[in-house]
Amino acid sequence: MASVHGLDTVVAAATELSMVDGEAGRLVYRGYPAPELALHRSFAEVAHLLWAGDLPDATQLLQMEESLKVARVIPHDLQALVDALPQGIDVMSGVRTVVSAVVPCQEWPPTLADATLLTGMFPTIVASVYAKSIGQTLPALHHGLSHVENYLYMLSGEVPSAAHARALEAYLILTMDHGLNASTFASRVTLSTQSDMSAGLTAALGAMKGPLHGGAPSGVIDMLDKIQTRENAEPWLRAKLDRSERLMGFGHRVYKTVDPRAEALKAVVRDLAGADPWFDLAVHVERTAVALLEEYKPGHRLYTNVEFWAAAILRTVGIPKDLYTATFSTSRVVGWTAHMLEQAQNNRLIRPQSQYVGPMPSSGAGGAGGAGGAGARGSSSGAAAM
Amino acid sequence: MASVHGLDTVVAAATELSMVDGEAGRLVYRGYPAPELALHRSFAEVAHLLWAGDLPDATQLLQMEESLKVARVIPHDLQALVDALPQGIDVMSGVRTVVSAVVPCQEWPPTLADATLLTGMFPTIVASVYAKSIGQTLPALHHGLSHVENYLYMLSGEVPSAAHARALEAYLILTMDHGLNASTFASRVTLSTQSDMSAGLTAALGAMKGPLHGGAPSGVIDMLDKIQTRENAEPWLRAKLDRSERLMGFGHRVYKTVDPRAEALKAVVRDLAGADPWFDLAVHVERTAVALLEEYKPGHRLYTNVEFWAAAILRTVGIPKDLYTATFSTSRVVGWTAHMLEQAQNNRLIRPQSQYVGPMPSSGAGGAGGAGGAGARGSSSGAAAM
Repeated sequence: MASVHGLDTVVAAATELSMVDGEAGRLVYRGYPAPELALHRSFAEVAHLLWAGDLPDATQLLQMEESLKVARVIPHDLQALVDALPQGIDVMSGVRTVVSAVVPCQEWPPTLADATLLTGMFPTIVASVYAKSIGQTLPALHHGLSHVENYLYMLSGEVPSAAHARALEAYLILTMDHGLNASTFASRVTLSTQSDMSAGLTAALGAMKGPLHGGAPSGVIDMLDKIQTRENAEPWLRAKLDRSERLMGFGHRVYKTVDPRAEALKAVVRDLAGADPWFDLAVHVERTAVALLEEYKPGHRLYTNVEFWAAAILRTVGIPKDLYTATFSTSRVVGWTAHMLEQAQNNRLIRPQSQYVGPMPSSGAGGAGGAGGAGARGSSSGAAAM
Repeated sequence: MASVHGLDTVVAAATELSMVDGEAGRLVYRGYPAPELALHRSFAEVAHLLWAGDLPDATQLLQMEESLKVARVIPHDLQALVDALPQGIDVMSGVRTVVSAVVPCQEWPPTLADATLLTGMFPTIVASVYAKSIGQTLPALHHGLSHVENYLYMLSGEVPSAAHARALEAYLILTMDHGLNASTFASRVTLSTQSDMSAGLTAALGAMKGPLHGGAPSGVIDMLDKIQTRENAEPWLRAKLDRSERLMGFGHRVYKTVDPRAEALKAVVRDLAGADPWFDLAVHVERTAVALLEEYKPGHRLYTNVEFWAAAILRTVGIPKDLYTATFSTSRVVGWTAHMLEQAQNNRLIRPQSQYVGPMPSSGAGGAGGAGGAGARGSSSGAAAM
């Protein structure tokens, strides 16, 4: 029986949803390279691909967009729950609490209708919980805007520029799914008891909150905030490298080569550099940093990672720092719900073994005797351990 | 790389908390046979054992009882959240939603203080959500009663008999922990991202809701409800067996011999049979059923399982059927929080692999070429698959 701390080398599920190939630097969604989808497709199209297995035709796309739009208006009772959230609760825990209260249309098996409903309402829940957390009134919706545009509208009260919406949409598409990460796994474990999609999504959001997964504050933002202008980039970065400090946003644990998500986001941001000075700064800082890293650490081949471009985009489009993990979740909710639909198709309770390494009871108390262990104890009997 | 659907044969954690030995029919908590603890110890004593590693001395026990008692009064903001729960939400989802909103004293690492707080307030949350679900006002507490007695008091408004409290306490102790079951595993996966105890508990409650785990409605109750009197037992059971129908509450998947939890609960109920006619009925029905099963299916050795005695106890002490899974959770919360404390001691992100079994992209789009797969597709390029 294999015992693997962290399960790193255990395959816990077969999936048709995404292939993460760290060696070759590839991320594939159902046969399509994710970067290509991010550059050429919409949020609704890729969500349809992950849920239903194929890109939608024109009619299916209209239906999907409409379903997401209808779900955008959250029911009064969920709004009341947002109002009743305890003071001091962080945004991710608040969002999780509200999602937990969504009564699914069907408990078992989970349905595409509930996946669409939860995904469609998710940005509204995030924006509402955030508004409450900073003491503002609940945000207005804009029914004329797309799923991604409306999210930005709810946060700022302004119709976003095409460049901002395009950049955020590319980021959201590229982070919709990424194999069996901890939050996705938590959702599949939870659903495997024949629990419902709200329960699984709640579990995923609990895992996503942890700093080892979705909750790490971004050092990239701090870096860009400190650099501020193109002229400052080289001296600031040189000073950092002269002190042998690490540059945030470079290098990756899984991808041994270029992170395909970083490459795609870089392409998006480069295209948009003229449209916003912050995009322009990010492109300049990255180019300068890569050149300096090669000068200071020749041959190390430190690639820009997805966090660099993600942070650059989230900052440029005006997402508050407290909403980075929640914004990431507005895309990953597609992957979570798609994995739950997949889990239900061929469900089996996910129930691993544990290995008991505690003390063994004394022989007089427990019955059939000990199979070894760290010691023996008995609460009332004083008999010796076997 | 091992690929195991359901992870049945994978050891995912080492634990000092409980040993489930299905072959020998043993359940051990930190070196103590659980049945012995259920017969001779209190809820607070066994909770202390699981959390802190040893049975408490007199001072520690007083402190533990006091901490659980203080936590019994839930803050006004949680009460407000109960009031704001959506109409139609089931009790388990309502409890999960309220637990999700508990702001832990410390996010990381999780603490004994939060384990005690969450466990102490749990029965109040259950009773409050239940009261709201049936349109009643929030229940009163009774500070003079123990943790278990007060739970019964909140549900009925009456001080329970010693026999009822004793039986329920034995049941709760015996179900506090049981290896790496699905809900416990979900809590450890969630916590392993360095998320907090409320997040992990929320995940556990999502898994517990599923009928494959904690949420199966009990056929045992229906049986006892239909039998009603000692005189009816034999004819009712014979009629059932004559029709080759299954008797609920006999046989177990894991335990190849007597389920140690069933044996302990049987002993408790036998002791109390004189104290309540329903205990008496349960003892009589079990004895009759075992004899008839040996007559109808000689040699099958069908043992009474824990569900039989659990149902008999929960029914006798007056727990509403809609609260069985939630009541089970008031005990398992000790195991969940103990597992999270243990996970944090030697934490490593639980992040298994998935095996991609979807189609591969066409060669023109994805880069380094395919490692096989079910087919090939490209969203814009028409190049052939590699």
